[in-house]
Amino acid sequence: MKVSELGEFGLIDLLAVMISGSKSDQPGPGQLVIGLGDDAAAWRSDDSIELATVDAMVQGIHFTLDTISWRELGWKSLAINLSDIAAMGGVPRYALVALGLPEDTRVEDVSLLYEGMIELAQQTGTGIVGGNISRSPVVAVTITVIGGSPDGRVLRRSTARPGDTIAITGHPGCAAAGLEMLKKKMKLPAPAGDHLRAAFLSPTPRLDEGRTLIKCGVETAIDTSDGLLADLRHICEASRVSARINVDNLPIHPAVSENFGERARTLALSGGEDYELLFTAAAPVIKRVKTDLAGPVTAIGRITAGEPGKISLFDAAGKTVEIKEYGWSHF
Amino acid sequence: MKVSELGEFGLIDLLAVMISGSKSDQPGPGQLVIGLGDDAAAWRSDDSIELATVDAMVQGIHFTLDTISWRELGWKSLAINLSDIAAMGGVPRYALVALGLPEDTRVEDVSLLYEGMIELAQQTGTGIVGGNISRSPVVAVTITVIGGSPDGRVLRRSTARPGDTIAITGHPGCAAAGLEMLKKKMKLPAPAGDHLRAAFLSPTPRLDEGRTLIKCGVETAIDTSDGLLADLRHICEASRVSARINVDNLPIHPAVSENFGERARTLALSGGEDYELLFTAAAPVIKRVKTDLAGPVTAIGRITAGEPGKISLFDAAGKTVEIKEYGWSHF
Repeated sequence: MKVSELGEFGLIDLLAVMISGSKSDQPGPGQLVIGLGDDAAAWRSDDSIELATVDAMVQGIHFTLDTISWRELGWKSLAINLSDIAAMGGVPRYALVALGLPEDTRVEDVSLLYEGMIELAQQTGTGIVGGNISRSPVVAVTITVIGGSPDGRVLRRSTARPGDTIAITGHPGCAAAGLEMLKKKMKLPAPAGDHLRAAFLSPTPRLDEGRTLIKCGVETAIDTSDGLLADLRHICEASRVSARINVDNLPIHPAVSENFGERARTLALSGGEDYELLFTAAAPVIKRVKTDLAGPVTAIGRITAGEPGKISLFDAAGKTVEIKEYGWSHF
Repeated sequence: MKVSELGEFGLIDLLAVMISGSKSDQPGPGQLVIGLGDDAAAWRSDDSIELATVDAMVQGIHFTLDTISWRELGWKSLAINLSDIAAMGGVPRYALVALGLPEDTRVEDVSLLYEGMIELAQQTGTGIVGGNISRSPVVAVTITVIGGSPDGRVLRRSTARPGDTIAITGHPGCAAAGLEMLKKKMKLPAPAGDHLRAAFLSPTPRLDEGRTLIKCGVETAIDTSDGLLADLRHICEASRVSARINVDNLPIHPAVSENFGERARTLALSGGEDYELLFTAAAPVIKRVKTDLAGPVTAIGRITAGEPGKISLFDAAGKTVEIKEYGWSHF
């Protein structure tokens, strides 16, 4: 069987079984808090928890150099990793950067890549402490971020409970709208166009938001890298619960609703790469989050008991809504 | 300028300057012990030192699937990272695996890759705790290993002193001879052929040896990934010293000397990917290492005061020896 037939998540499940079957022989398993299957790995070290995550940007798969600048590529390659630390409620500390570069890559472009990366590293207190450079047929940036949760608490995918409210930061669908705008060379008015371009090419990892969620008592979160529905399904599968979404409550940004018509809702539900935080908690906790977070927080549905991973969509009138696209998978 | 003109090490130097120029704004710089420029990054955490390193194996650059099996690829991809931890005298703890796979990759082959990786992980007490899978035009395995030095001591590149003896574990040149044998489809007698194949395709990271070096009082080491001379030059540049090598003292394995004639010495000096430990220390310390290490340890030269990075080669009669090839660079 080819990996394209099994699919990305099927392959991850298969490898997770192989690895967990072997884990008993490894020392210090008592220290490991979370292995595969969450936004980052987590292990205990004294009173705190250490976190580590890795993610890659591959030319031709995740980006093309005619739409993203080298500076944006550096920023985004680090941002998607910091977003995984944010989704654990953690604080980033160190980054290791593995670059794959074709031999005719311009040195100036590599410098711009690092400028973008360093800018975000400085803003977030992340030290770039190591790396590797290798020749490669395409540009590939693979970054590992190591961080921690000083108070020993983390946000997980596996702790959602029936009755929890489902909420999200920001405006889902902006990144996917930005990608569509760039691909189709759509001419949008500057504020809308700039907003969507930035949403797709230089997302802001929600690190402060992740810490605030923990302080407010939230236990369950994921970042929306695969898309709202796909990432909600990750939570529901890990927590063995179902979910109901009220699609009329989706906080769709005017730049999307005004320029993408009927597609706006699909972009919000299925478009990937927003790197917002999707989280669940009891209603009073969500209320506290809305007060404590500066940016937008919107309740969009509810966790229910039922078939693990099943998500039902409704409109404000209670009528079932169908959707065909379900988010991003690699194969 | 293209990266192929600047070269791998020139590019690393350029990026290191950019990063160190930005570091002052990052919190916790006092905790960072070693950033770029050694085998692994190192930072202090209470009494111990934490280590992290990343390395990649890219199809068509580091391997071709007609010479390496998927199982060996899994083993070697982890081994080259564990070797960097060994070169710091550290103990590995966790690994994160970023896979790039073409969509027609067979699932069975990915399983074999993981079998090889898990086998070495179990032997070395390394937990595979995270990863990422991405579509890619070629197979690429990028692994980050996180480890530590429980007693807070590490082996560095920058601490070699004039008068130090230079020594090496194992037999340099075996991996390069193995590569040449596979490339030229040479038919060697089984023991020699098997030894060279294994040296190139499934190297053993010298983790126990690294810990023993620290216990014996060694402070300076590197693993021979780029080749003996290239890696010795890394030590000499970082330590701002010169070196003299007696080429007649090189511990060339019979499988190399008996099958590669005049090329044997060049393979030992310039061939990469042996993943042995090259280290320097005062003569009494080296003597202790020879007693405490089970495997072969050979003194091959001496650190001298002089132009940083300059390496002179002599034979047993004291005559200067010239060599043209100087080891592996990516661009």
